[in-house]
Formats: sequence, C-alpha cells, structure tokens
Amino acid sequence: MADPSLSQAMEDTAADVELLLDRLLPMPEGPEGRVAEAMRYATLGGGKRFRPYLACEAAKLFTVSEDRALRTAAAIECVHTYSLVHDDLPCMDDDDLRRGRPSTHKAFDEATAVLAGDALLTFAFEILGDADTHDDYRVRCDLVLGLAKAVGTHGMVGGQMIDMASEGTILDIGALTRLQQLKTGALIAFACESGAILGKASKDAHHALHAYAHDLGLAYQIIDDLLDEEGDSATLGKTAGKDRAKGKATFATILGPERAREQAGMLADQAIQHLDLFDEKADSLRSATSFVINRSA
Amino acid sequence: MADPSLSQAMEDTAADVELLLDRLLPMPEGPEGRVAEAMRYATLGGGKRFRPYLACEAAKLFTVSEDRALRTAAAIECVHTYSLVHDDLPCMDDDDLRRGRPSTHKAFDEATAVLAGDALLTFAFEILGDADTHDDYRVRCDLVLGLAKAVGTHGMVGGQMIDMASEGTILDIGALTRLQQLKTGALIAFACESGAILGKASKDAHHALHAYAHDLGLAYQIIDDLLDEEGDSATLGKTAGKDRAKGKATFATILGPERAREQAGMLADQAIQHLDLFDEKADSLRSATSFVINRSA
Repeated sequence: MADPSLSQAMEDTAADVELLLDRLLPMPEGPEGRVAEAMRYATLGGGKRFRPYLACEAAKLFTVSEDRALRTAAAIECVHTYSLVHDDLPCMDDDDLRRGRPSTHKAFDEATAVLAGDALLTFAFEILGDADTHDDYRVRCDLVLGLAKAVGTHGMVGGQMIDMASEGTILDIGALTRLQQLKTGALIAFACESGAILGKASKDAHHALHAYAHDLGLAYQIIDDLLDEEGDSATLGKTAGKDRAKGKATFATILGPERAREQAGMLADQAIQHLDLFDEKADSLRSATSFVINRSA
Repeated sequence: MADPSLSQAMEDTAADVELLLDRLLPMPEGPEGRVAEAMRYATLGGGKRFRPYLACEAAKLFTVSEDRALRTAAAIECVHTYSLVHDDLPCMDDDDLRRGRPSTHKAFDEATAVLAGDALLTFAFEILGDADTHDDYRVRCDLVLGLAKAVGTHGMVGGQMIDMASEGTILDIGALTRLQQLKTGALIAFACESGAILGKASKDAHHALHAYAHDLGLAYQIIDDLLDEEGDSATLGKTAGKDRAKGKATFATILGPERAREQAGMLADQAIQHLDLFDEKADSLRSATSFVINRSA
C-alpha cells in the first residue's frame, strides 16, 4: 500500500501480531492443556493491539527488521493480556466482559485465569530472552530489564495496587495522574522504547520516545475514562460505566468531559512535538495521537 | 567454620539469602506501598530456602562468586514464593497457613496477594536481567530463558494446572510423577542448573546437575507427601493432611508410606550417582539428599 490510512496500518499490524501470537503461544496439549487454552482464549481474536502498533512503528524509526519488532510486540501484548485477565478477577475489578466476550475467569474458572495470567507474564520474558528476538544478548537483556521495570511495583502492578487501595477514596488530579502513569503509561512507554532498544538507538532517541509515550499514554487514559463514562458496553467490548458505579475518581469526573477532552488534545499535541528529532518516518507515530483522541472503543 | 554440618550450612545460606532479599525487595513507599509490604511479608522471615541452597552449592562447583550465586538464588526464591502465594489463594488450594503464619491473602487480601505474586515473578526477571547478577549478557539471557521455561506452561504453571484440573480424579503413578516434575521439579532443576549457567560449565556438567535435580526433586516431593500425611500443621508451618482431605492422589496414598519412603531413598541414591563427574566440591550436594530424606518439615 502506498499510503495506507492509519486504521488500515493498525489493522495490518494487529493481523501480523495475531498470526505470530497464534504461532508462538503453547498449544493445548496433555492434562495441563487447559491453561494453554485459556492463554489463547484471552490473547487471540480481539483487542486493538495498540501497544504492538506503537512498538512496531517505533522500531521502524531505526530500521529494525519486522520479525524482531513483531516478536517484541507479541511479548508486550502477552503482558497486556495478563494484566487484563488478572484485573478482571472477582477479587480485583470483578468484570465479566472483556473484548466483547466473557472474561477469562468466566469462560474458564478463577484458578485457570490466575494461572493463564501467570503463564502469559512468564511467556513474555521467554519470548524476549530468546535468540529469535535479537542476536545481540545485550539487546535481549535490555528488553527483559525494561519490561520487568515497566510492569513491576514501580510500574503496572504498582498502579493497579493504588487503584485497588484507593477504592472509596477520592483521588486528586495529581494522584490520579501518577496512578495512570504506572498502571497503563509504563507499558505504553516500554512499547515505544522497545523500538529504540531493538535499534540500539541514541540516548536522545530513547528520551524522545519516552516523552512521547508519556504524553500519549496519559491522553489515551483520559479518553478511556470519557468512553467509560459516555460509551456503551457493546461498543467498548467491556463493561461501561464501571468507574462511576464504583465511585472511582477518573479524569472525566475530576475535570468534567469538556476539560478532559481539551486536556487530552493538548497532551496529544505535546506528544507530537517530542518527535521533532525524527524525520517523516515518525509520521505514523504522529498520526497515532489522532487515533488516541478520536477512538470510540 | 572448618566443617559445618549440613544443617548449619543451609542455615547460613538461608541467612545470606534473607539479608539479600531484604536489601533487594522494594520498600513499602507511596500509595502503592501495600504490594511491597505483601511481597516482603510473603518472602522474608521464613522458609527453608532449599532452592537457594541448591543454587549456591551448584555455583560453588564452578567457582562462581558468592554475590552472583546469591542474587540468582534470591530470584529463584522470589519465584518460589510467588507460586506459594498464588497456590494458597481461595480459588486454588485455599490455604490459610503458610510458613507458620497466615498466608498472604489472609494477612492482606486476595487482590493484594494476586498482585504481590505477580510482582515477585516480575521481580525475579528484573534481578536476573541486571548487570549485578553477571557481567556477561549471554549468561543473563540464559538465566532468564531457563527460569521462564522452568516456571511456564511446560513447568510450574503446567504442574499446578494439572493439580487443579485433576481434583476429584485418581491419578496413576505416571501421571502423578509428571505432575510433580512440572510443579516442583522444574524449578528445583533450574536452581541446580543455574550454577552451571553462572559458571559457563560444560554440557556434561549441565546434564549431570539436571539429572541430579530430577531425582532429588522427586524424592523431595515424595517426602512432602508423607509429611502431609503423617505430620502436623504446627511442625510443617502449613496445613497438614490437606491432600487426603481433598481426596488427592499422592505418592504416599498410591505407594503406601513404606514403599514411598523406599522409593525416595532409591531416588536419593540415584541422585548422588549423577554427581560422579564432580570431585569433593560436590559433597554438599551429595549430603543435601539426606536432608531431603530425613527432614521433618
């Protein structure tokens, strides 16, 4: 395609990642097959694959081979899926609907969902540690370390902990921003930075991608909150209005829908500015900000 | 100490690992501090530290520095602890007692226990991916890959899945052996092999340690089953008799206590034979088999 639209490009990457995940994920075999079945159920056949798209587009800036970028993207999607499976558990957000289907613990059972999440997290590190992801051991170590930091207590898990611990309390905008930077921002930032790691890019390039991802991730979350407030479950593929039902503070409730949308737009513009040191190869990352702002699911 | 007894040597390693874990584990800080608190609660202040001992003794065979061996041992103990925290959850084995104290979801809550387990698993990969564990990137990649394989669907998670899925059915000895090789054997094998990875040992040394760990792990599990059958909760520090209560097949119930003990003894002898290519530096691993056979908790 000479000039594919953004949504076409995202669909293409989603299809490539889907194919690769289908090939990489363990097949349900033997008496332990149920956990592989649950991993495949949770991971395949849905999802916008936004993080994989960012990883692949960032990798293109540094002429990384598509195979390597896609494997890294697949690992990131495994981790994202693990977080959804565990977050949906009854003891966490207790959500029955995900990506338009019963969530994993509803389709299987809680024990299988816990194990499938554990296995997806583990599998991501197996993908990144494997020689097929990059022939340079240093790059693989940097990927492993970067992912571990993004999803541990100072990243995704920490964010989810704040989210759980603050139920029933009202967060202010600063606390909510930090929560979301940990819970969703850190993995989005790693997705963008993974391209720079794979491409052994300069420190400046790393920083630029990190700053871009920081603003983009926050804009993404603000729109998520607006959709939770305004959308319906059928379009979202997950339960709408659940934050309000739980009395949770969100960007939409703290700022109000208008200011929230304005804020997301400002962050998107700011994100684009961080890409100034890249040439037109970064145009797809520039347009990704409009996907974030204009999405309806 | 000129000639420390086995139990003294194990206690010394346990103390060293405890100190290091205390230093490495995140401190409870900020609104997400609760998850770090739960990680520390689950990991510190208890446990035989049998896997760390194996890792450290195996590393000594190849003159690996103590720092490196202990960091690897600490990572393995984080993974072992994560597996206990998740296995104790109400949706899994539903156990209220662990290491003589309330299990993590009882001391905190289920959501925090899920997150603490997730974070401990993640943290293990962060430790192994870090330059302090080894200055050779290749060694760190091999550790990451080895751990991921040992605890994924073809290892620990697979074993726990079989265990959950086979409740209410009677496993035969072959199926039970495979279950235990995955559930506990794979991580014990990785503990032993990690010494060879750190020491860049020969293939033969790798194979010998793997074979040793295979037999040792099975003997360990057989004795575990006997203790569950015959022991009391106060001595074990965890709920005794729970396998029988659930109607689970164990080595003790399938073989009967006498044959089970005989089988464990044979496996321990066999384990020692696999160490024939090592000199007296392997004596501590040789005596570790008697700890396994004679332990009462």
